Amino acid sequence: MQAVVARHPGLVLRPHMKTAKSVDVAALAAPGFGPITVSTIAEARYFAEAGWRDQIYAVGVTPQKLDQLAAIGGDIKLITDDVEAARAIADHPGGLRALVEIDVGEGRGGVTPESDELFTIATALGQRLAGVLAHAGHSYRGRDNPTMAATAEAERAGVVRAADRLREAGHAVPIVSMGSSPTALHAAHLDGVTELRAGVYMFGDLFQAQIGTHTLEDIALTVLTCVTGRKPARNAVLVDAGALALSKDRSTEAAPHDYGFGLTLDRQGRDTLGGAIVARTHQEHGEVTGPSPLPDLAIGARLRIAPNHTCLTAAAHPHYWVVDGSDAIIGQWARVNFW
Amino acid sequence: MQAVVARHPGLVLRPHMKTAKSVDVAALAAPGFGPITVSTIAEARYFAEAGWRDQIYAVGVTPQKLDQLAAIGGDIKLITDDVEAARAIADHPGGLRALVEIDVGEGRGGVTPESDELFTIATALGQRLAGVLAHAGHSYRGRDNPTMAATAEAERAGVVRAADRLREAGHAVPIVSMGSSPTALHAAHLDGVTELRAGVYMFGDLFQAQIGTHTLEDIALTVLTCVTGRKPARNAVLVDAGALALSKDRSTEAAPHDYGFGLTLDRQGRDTLGGAIVARTHQEHGEVTGPSPLPDLAIGARLRIAPNHTCLTAAAHPHYWVVDGSDAIIGQWARVNFW
Repeated sequence: MQAVVARHPGLVLRPHMKTAKSVDVAALAAPGFGPITVSTIAEARYFAEAGWRDQIYAVGVTPQKLDQLAAIGGDIKLITDDVEAARAIADHPGGLRALVEIDVGEGRGGVTPESDELFTIATALGQRLAGVLAHAGHSYRGRDNPTMAATAEAERAGVVRAADRLREAGHAVPIVSMGSSPTALHAAHLDGVTELRAGVYMFGDLFQAQIGTHTLEDIALTVLTCVTGRKPARNAVLVDAGALALSKDRSTEAAPHDYGFGLTLDRQGRDTLGGAIVARTHQEHGEVTGPSPLPDLAIGARLRIAPNHTCLTAAAHPHYWVVDGSDAIIGQWARVNFW
Repeated sequence: MQAVVARHPGLVLRPHMKTAKSVDVAALAAPGFGPITVSTIAEARYFAEAGWRDQIYAVGVTPQKLDQLAAIGGDIKLITDDVEAARAIADHPGGLRALVEIDVGEGRGGVTPESDELFTIATALGQRLAGVLAHAGHSYRGRDNPTMAATAEAERAGVVRAADRLREAGHAVPIVSMGSSPTALHAAHLDGVTELRAGVYMFGDLFQAQIGTHTLEDIALTVLTCVTGRKPARNAVLVDAGALALSKDRSTEAAPHDYGFGLTLDRQGRDTLGGAIVARTHQEHGEVTGPSPLPDLAIGARLRIAPNHTCLTAAAHPHYWVVDGSDAIIGQWARVNFW
């Protein structure tokens, strides 16, 4: 992602730490305490205390959160698509600034680039306006490169159009922020954008591998598990990674290849089990089965599960064990969970 | 659940703490440090340190976990359906005992009551055999009282049959354990069973309400959230409880009423929003919509979400805020997460 950004003069990478939630990962993704994006107040505080002062808290803010956010210090920029929240930000003594959230086609948060609300909110923010921000979450619905490129261009053009309209009306719009891992990688150009937010690229997952963000081999996060039961009559083993350890995310259900609750790899993280997947989960049980006969596995044999959706799987765990090319542990990395 | 058990002389309640994972809840569910069931080694250690010494760790054990479990002390009984694991238990110097897991129709873990493996495993355990245990997880597939009662009877008859066969062969089988919240409540009788394990009944959820475990009004756990965006054009609001705060569990997808990712209640926990549900989730966003027009809600307005599957939703949070009949906080209860 750093290489993508380096190809665009003037563009800044503001990686989204919602996936990794780790200062150890931030040291790689945003070295030198560069700008970052966060998704919770807990992340904002954690990263600010560690030295990352330039943040965007990229979930629509509410008035009752402003005191907490202002108390963190640093330069935490908020986002809003609501005039009431904009007024509360402008009136807050903490000096907090905010970006207007732009809907570029996902239909989640944001106002559209051509809307009148764009002006109402910007005017309510007044001197606290820091820019505009878009997230093309609907890129996750794309399945081929031309569709992804079109979504990326819709995101770019939408957020730049919103910035242009505000500037024509006399507002200063220093930040024009877009980003998701897929659109960042599929955009033909990024003219007018000042910064890219992307997060899932740091670890990758089975879903992102299917929409062209990276290859299967690039998936950096797996769940280590062990065999707790052997069921050869149904070509299955039970493992101690279930719904809590993997999450119930079924992202790949709608992808070309449905991996159930995750792809089963060997202890070294190699795809040597013939495409076996976690077909069922219970709270602490996963059932691994596959199209080919499973190898003989002893009770306690260790396997790894590659996740459907790495953000949710990572959130189930208190920290990361870092392994080298095989499976020797070479470190433990921190995480900030909860809110 | 205590009343159900009290109707059966000699029957003991061994509540499953995997849902609540809280000493404060255990003090109500297993008062006087009564027997409990746990699902992780972290739970086993946490509850043993707090005084609950009589435990069943009810997930198939593996040899590499025995040292950790033995080091906890207390009386932690294991389960297994594998002769290799049974031999490791019998050979372990820690004196750990185990129950043989019986498959009474779910087709997850366990050996069937009529199998030869039942004897092989019991013989391998030798003096370490503590009993037999069944879990009719397939009760969750039932949708009416006669089906639930039949599943409960299959669970009871299966585990008692396994105990009888082992006793006929000369084994002592002190514990005959069955249980899930639905089968415990739907069983016509429990002859031959010595203890009931059930856990989700402590909090309840939208799925259990639909299979007759309790009523909607009995759901004791909700996620407090606030409105982060207003989208009247699509009769929706965005809230700050998303996939991480609610879990991605979609249990009610296959139930008579599909609640999406949860039922939206007002701040006092009352069903006054006309059946509005969380229809979509992203990591930190939920989108609430419903069949009736939503009331006017300010930015920051507080709502509560009743969960599809309380075990998974509770696991997303570091502790519980205890509220009285309205929404005044009267305490904080602990939880033990992770493994």
